[in-house]
Amino acid sequence: MTSVDHIWHGCRLATLSPSRQGLGLVDDGIVACAGGRILYAGPAAEAPSMSDAKRTDCDGRWITPGLIDCHTHLVHAGNRAFEFEQRLSGASYEEIAQAGGGILSTVRATRQASVEALIAAALPRLDALIAEGVTTIEIKSGYGLELDTERRQLHAARRLGSLRAVTTRTSFLGAHTVPPEMKGNSRAYIDAVCNEMLPAIAAEGLADAVDAFCEGIAFSPDETARVFAKAVSLGLPVRLHADQLSNLGGAALAARFGALSADHLEYADEDGVAAMGRAGTVAVVLPGAFYFIRERQLPPIEAMRRHGIAIALATDSNPGTSPLTSLLMAMNMGATLFRLTVEECIAAVTREAARALGLLKATGSLEAGKYCDLAIWNIERPAELVYRMGFNPLYARVWHGISDAPRHRT
Amino acid sequence: MTSVDHIWHGCRLATLSPSRQGLGLVDDGIVACAGGRILYAGPAAEAPSMSDAKRTDCDGRWITPGLIDCHTHLVHAGNRAFEFEQRLSGASYEEIAQAGGGILSTVRATRQASVEALIAAALPRLDALIAEGVTTIEIKSGYGLELDTERRQLHAARRLGSLRAVTTRTSFLGAHTVPPEMKGNSRAYIDAVCNEMLPAIAAEGLADAVDAFCEGIAFSPDETARVFAKAVSLGLPVRLHADQLSNLGGAALAARFGALSADHLEYADEDGVAAMGRAGTVAVVLPGAFYFIRERQLPPIEAMRRHGIAIALATDSNPGTSPLTSLLMAMNMGATLFRLTVEECIAAVTREAARALGLLKATGSLEAGKYCDLAIWNIERPAELVYRMGFNPLYARVWHGISDAPRHRT
Repeated sequence: MTSVDHIWHGCRLATLSPSRQGLGLVDDGIVACAGGRILYAGPAAEAPSMSDAKRTDCDGRWITPGLIDCHTHLVHAGNRAFEFEQRLSGASYEEIAQAGGGILSTVRATRQASVEALIAAALPRLDALIAEGVTTIEIKSGYGLELDTERRQLHAARRLGSLRAVTTRTSFLGAHTVPPEMKGNSRAYIDAVCNEMLPAIAAEGLADAVDAFCEGIAFSPDETARVFAKAVSLGLPVRLHADQLSNLGGAALAARFGALSADHLEYADEDGVAAMGRAGTVAVVLPGAFYFIRERQLPPIEAMRRHGIAIALATDSNPGTSPLTSLLMAMNMGATLFRLTVEECIAAVTREAARALGLLKATGSLEAGKYCDLAIWNIERPAELVYRMGFNPLYARVWHGISDAPRHRT
Repeated sequence: MTSVDHIWHGCRLATLSPSRQGLGLVDDGIVACAGGRILYAGPAAEAPSMSDAKRTDCDGRWITPGLIDCHTHLVHAGNRAFEFEQRLSGASYEEIAQAGGGILSTVRATRQASVEALIAAALPRLDALIAEGVTTIEIKSGYGLELDTERRQLHAARRLGSLRAVTTRTSFLGAHTVPPEMKGNSRAYIDAVCNEMLPAIAAEGLADAVDAFCEGIAFSPDETARVFAKAVSLGLPVRLHADQLSNLGGAALAARFGALSADHLEYADEDGVAAMGRAGTVAVVLPGAFYFIRERQLPPIEAMRRHGIAIALATDSNPGTSPLTSLLMAMNMGATLFRLTVEECIAAVTREAARALGLLKATGSLEAGKYCDLAIWNIERPAELVYRMGFNPLYARVWHGISDAPRHRT
């Protein structure tokens, strides 16, 4: 008889297990947890005999893997509501930049913020995501653009994971934009990223991956390649903001370095997508940014399907182009704006998001051996998670076997 | 000395009072309440001397009028997530209709539901809206298409207002679509609406207004005019689903009957907008539906501004084309998709929404004599209410002077 801590029974499961079709649905399911990990998830009828344990009757509710937000800029100071207001009142991007707006306003505010202030600013955003069933979140730096602030951002991201029952994964995004003090000298800044910042961040173990923004308004493919080569030499996996506003071949570049993911991808071409397919690089699509900046160019979803690429969805939660803190809304936007199917959307915030973070062995599906990260929902069918807008049907959330208090339906 | 029940002080106010510019901002404000109504709202320095009262220090938080969702189909049974899923998987509208989907699936489910079942289904949706500071909500019938069910929907809508601290206003929308049993015979159904349903609903006092859907897939302008003439003869104000999918002159038709509002309006023309301006008919724009059905035709916002028309925003909360239960998200969509300014968006869910419901004397702004309906926010500037997506900064909500428990920030 197997020893178990907690059994959730009377539930319907979307296991996302690749051993089952589609979402891996189980009609009368149970999930058994021991030591924070899933011991068994599947049909009640096929469960092994288990020891006495805490038992929770789910009353027919649905359980999915805990949600994973695999691309966020959650840790930053300041906010850009004023800029948003000015733009709606007719101000141009130039006028806003001249008035101190734009990404550099976030850099300025973040440089002035302590780790504690960064945590305090990020916590309400993190709590909004957690309230919707998020159990793993990726958080980038990239608003310091100098070592100390980048370090503080990553420290804050790590600390959030100890303040809440959530797994945080950090990405060093020093190559986000050229800092104001080095304007026009991106080469010198990339030197600093490669020779000073990256080695220090790596030595301190502050980053789980290295990210960059390859774009006309940010860094060239050559500059990005320098950052990636350095990251790889330091043993860090890479990921890329690729082909968001124009096609610079970012998808292929990411694939060349075996990137975990290439993100955005609105302007990626067939060759880039094919290269991602060969490299096993995940496509992270970010419809919140697409929506917020009123982009018209859709990411090449059909090509991604054709090349068998894993597609993940994330909030992009950032102050400039996607002030979004709802992964459920990101799913709805993925379906409504990008025509992802319901199955694709749900896989995109669970199994495929775990893949994009290199965490597929640890989380993202309901399979024995993985962490017991669950979202339990007041829904009648999984499609409701994608269909509704601005409605949170979460009943309870479980992280590493520990359950939050359930939200009781009125 | 004036007798007072409750004073909120240390707050910043967006009063929406027409006696002040723009949002009617007050920097160091107080709101004083007596008998459920606002006694004073304005600068602390100009407040009259008042008796002892319960005092709440707002710590610099912002207070706006309680939000008003002036166009919803909140009361219905069933859900259309399956249809959404099928459509994303490539099913056509015809295939979905043949499989029993579409509006008639909601009609079928609603006809089978008791008042209690309708209330139980609507409450979580209502609670989602209330959690964002909504204090007044309009709810339509229109999924019965026969007297008994329409009546149950309106009863349920009225009852919701006694189950929660919220004002509900009902609209009879018998002329929503032709019922299946009268397919192809809209004339006979309009006869029934005018001669049987409307007089009964009016006699029972179940409706505060009469609505109709004037569209190629619903009722013609002539049929709509018959319904409106009957409503006016019964002393009921009218409103209209107008020019959503095509231009049938719905805006002008609504204006001709002195409608409180004309809603949707994507295809309204200049003449229609001008007629609304002369009649004082409010434009209710519904970006959630625009987004969800992927409409491309934008409502004529510039023409509305030119003709001095009041613009309101609402969720449209309905199962077929706008399963949205966040008025904050509707505001963001109003700004992002329709380019409404921040001031327009905030006025659109307070003062102008009250105007659209004929409730301007009772609520919608912070002015002496109106109900003390307040939303208290954890924000630094009003623009944050529009700028963020999927984030709820509500601190506390007050309806008719009664405060919900504040949500404490972590």
